[in-house]
Amino acid sequence: MAGRLYVVSTPIGNLDDITARAINTLKAVGVVAAEDTRRTGLLLRHFGIATATTSLHEHNETEKVPALLRKLSEGIDIALVSDAGTPLVADPGQRLIAAAIEHGIRVVPIPGASAVLTALAASGYPADEFVFAGFAPSRSKDRISWLRRLAGEERPVVFFEAPHRIAKTLADMADILVERPITIARELTKLHEEVVRTTATLAPALQIAERGEFTIVLAPYSKPAEPTRAVDDAEIRSYFSQITNSKGLSRREALVATADKFGLSPNDVYARLERLKASRPS
Amino acid sequence: MAGRLYVVSTPIGNLDDITARAINTLKAVGVVAAEDTRRTGLLLRHFGIATATTSLHEHNETEKVPALLRKLSEGIDIALVSDAGTPLVADPGQRLIAAAIEHGIRVVPIPGASAVLTALAASGYPADEFVFAGFAPSRSKDRISWLRRLAGEERPVVFFEAPHRIAKTLADMADILVERPITIARELTKLHEEVVRTTATLAPALQIAERGEFTIVLAPYSKPAEPTRAVDDAEIRSYFSQITNSKGLSRREALVATADKFGLSPNDVYARLERLKASRPS
Repeated sequence: MAGRLYVVSTPIGNLDDITARAINTLKAVGVVAAEDTRRTGLLLRHFGIATATTSLHEHNETEKVPALLRKLSEGIDIALVSDAGTPLVADPGQRLIAAAIEHGIRVVPIPGASAVLTALAASGYPADEFVFAGFAPSRSKDRISWLRRLAGEERPVVFFEAPHRIAKTLADMADILVERPITIARELTKLHEEVVRTTATLAPALQIAERGEFTIVLAPYSKPAEPTRAVDDAEIRSYFSQITNSKGLSRREALVATADKFGLSPNDVYARLERLKASRPS
Repeated sequence: MAGRLYVVSTPIGNLDDITARAINTLKAVGVVAAEDTRRTGLLLRHFGIATATTSLHEHNETEKVPALLRKLSEGIDIALVSDAGTPLVADPGQRLIAAAIEHGIRVVPIPGASAVLTALAASGYPADEFVFAGFAPSRSKDRISWLRRLAGEERPVVFFEAPHRIAKTLADMADILVERPITIARELTKLHEEVVRTTATLAPALQIAERGEFTIVLAPYSKPAEPTRAVDDAEIRSYFSQITNSKGLSRREALVATADKFGLSPNDVYARLERLKASRPS
């Protein structure tokens, strides 16, 4: 009889975030296919699990899959794990799962921790539906257009960012998402877990430590209330200039205040100001 | 010192799918706020946990929140659980979490099982990004337009369906998603776990047992290759009629065959045929 491929979720930080079934599965299988065998080795040793490991990551997945399929066909059970959380969610291993399915191997998911749902639960946003958008693009230009696409999403959006890019990404989010509520989660489930609920505008000034993996949740976009009367772009421009000059507001604060005044979203105000700029030489 | 609100994930079927930290948290808190106290009572007894429970579901959430906030402010820790999986994902409890955050209560997520990620891992579809679309709408008309909106989604889509509506929903999916690969997961993590990987067209004939909760995963929509030359609607209509008549194909089979012939998606072919119908009296 062919072996089974177990897709096993592992802790995302706190080692006690693993289930009894995951531990028993990791003990019982013939081999554990791990994204990083050293990291997974620490986990296995912590729980006194002596199962052999083999590496399976994005750079060797294509060549390793046939050997693993052969083991499965010989009746050896395999557990697939990633560095943290549920394999497949922005992790390698998808090729092995797809190949196993194609060869009629039974694939058994063993549920457990995931940074996506952990951050979403901590955010407090309504989550009857949500979008997981993966890792933020690393190139600034790509990230900006990616954030612009996500800005209108009416479901909460969860994504991951690396510590060395978080400052740039928060700055881009401030520009694009303005007063949108956001939740920034860092070191989730660890001793120094930090969950900051703020707005995109305010986030860059919070001096959040640039350490650990970040999971960010955007509150859903909600359509602004219909303006009570049609407002023309020039009127908006005039109000915006007036409060910028008289109250000494920053550009961003003035955008938000103008949006409130006319029942628009700050993004709308921004778009209208840009439209005016484009239509007349400045 | 104020208490903490722990948002605790519980098993979705197999009782061994709970983490050590979740068990310890449920033991340590002053009260467990549960969607269904009877169901959660079974779980607590299974693990020898004597903590008191109180009900918190969609019909009493508004009136229960103030009393729970009072407990928290008095320094009593509360664990929020749903019937199964991670609270907040299509579950009540969001109001309590949002109110706790507003009152400066520390909210601590305790990760664990979730049907969304379990089904996604079992599907084998690339899941660098994905959409969770909640429960399928119960009214046929709403469900059809909802499926039409999801049909073009280029990320995998996960949603839930109840056993008494699964047959209708699969029929609607066959009409709208045609040859799209889908994964139908039933009784996930339980003894009779069933994960069926098929296409929308083939699913209704599979006679899947209408028992247990269903989690469905749609493979991402992929844009069909560009047709090598412009094809006009009449030419498509003509080919479609010809193969329907000469080869005795069903309407659905003919749609797929025509799509293949012209390098279009079956949805495109369908739209073009409908457009022709609308433009000339039949």
